[in-house]
Amino acid sequence: MSFMEKLKEKIRSEGRVIGTGILKVDSFLNQQIDPQFTLEMGRELASRFTGEKITKVLTVEASGIAVATAAGLALGVPVVFAKKGRASTQDAGAYSARVYSFTRREAVDIFVSGRFLGPEDAVLIVDDFLAHGEALRGLVEIVRQAGSRLAGAGIVIEKVFQGGREKLKGQGLRIESLAAIKHMTDGHIEFL
Amino acid sequence: MSFMEKLKEKIRSEGRVIGTGILKVDSFLNQQIDPQFTLEMGRELASRFTGEKITKVLTVEASGIAVATAAGLALGVPVVFAKKGRASTQDAGAYSARVYSFTRREAVDIFVSGRFLGPEDAVLIVDDFLAHGEALRGLVEIVRQAGSRLAGAGIVIEKVFQGGREKLKGQGLRIESLAAIKHMTDGHIEFL
Repeated sequence: MSFMEKLKEKIRSEGRVIGTGILKVDSFLNQQIDPQFTLEMGRELASRFTGEKITKVLTVEASGIAVATAAGLALGVPVVFAKKGRASTQDAGAYSARVYSFTRREAVDIFVSGRFLGPEDAVLIVDDFLAHGEALRGLVEIVRQAGSRLAGAGIVIEKVFQGGREKLKGQGLRIESLAAIKHMTDGHIEFL
Repeated sequence: MSFMEKLKEKIRSEGRVIGTGILKVDSFLNQQIDPQFTLEMGRELASRFTGEKITKVLTVEASGIAVATAAGLALGVPVVFAKKGRASTQDAGAYSARVYSFTRREAVDIFVSGRFLGPEDAVLIVDDFLAHGEALRGLVEIVRQAGSRLAGAGIVIEKVFQGGREKLKGQGLRIESLAAIKHMTDGHIEFL
């Protein structure tokens, strides 16, 4: 079985669909982490971007950190994670963006210190989910502020029906996802 | 140079002391992550607890996740991270504890789903810092609620002068830290 098939199988057997939009995969991604499987996810995401001369992997706390670290390990580059929070606790000169969380129904500011991204960097964004595209849009904004080259985005699970990819279409952003869900209901997950 | 010496050297050269209590090591631990170095930290922490038959590594979001995942990888066991937040967004039957953040000057509730820890588990707590011991106390409380056996705690950087170890003394908890800071001022960090 290919790694992608293994991932889909895991999502089918361990994922729980809540309502129409939420997929809980907390048994291996969002609360419990399978370290060996995470390494494989990171390796697979990294392999999609070989030749891009990536210098940094960028993600946002918290669920993206493990898989981003695995991708950084595979690429041999540092990982930077954006922090969520209030401006007051951040460095002056930080890059920031406001993103809306549909799950939490609130806007949150995300920050990256100006010391960790710059015009010399080629950045791969990595995240666990692509849903409405809010987190990804915010991370893209931060890469633009830093003046870095954006190599693309590597996503573990894309919920295609929530339109994140569509929303970011105008940005010329290459998005690679390991598992793309076309449709889901309780008990049935249909991949693209 | 031993790994511990390398870590101390990295803390000395890259750490920034703010005021009397805050050590910022965001260049390799708290915002930017060095994946290869993180693997070594995890391996070193895991090696302190061989023979303990650990079944789960437990940490709290967000900065602990990368090193905990590395420790889980070395031990060949899953990693669980406690989430911070409001009770309303958590599973019924979750374990929880209230911890006070001296940096943010606020109390926060941390949660672990009841599905990921139980009486059959032997738990190693892993975190990036041990300061006043609040996060660690909260994680210990969660392990107790789950009825798991607590094998100990592995910490990357212990700020000895903030008394976390003292506070937890009564708990019979074995704490291993990779770097223990006795005293620090801007420009000078003294290890135990």
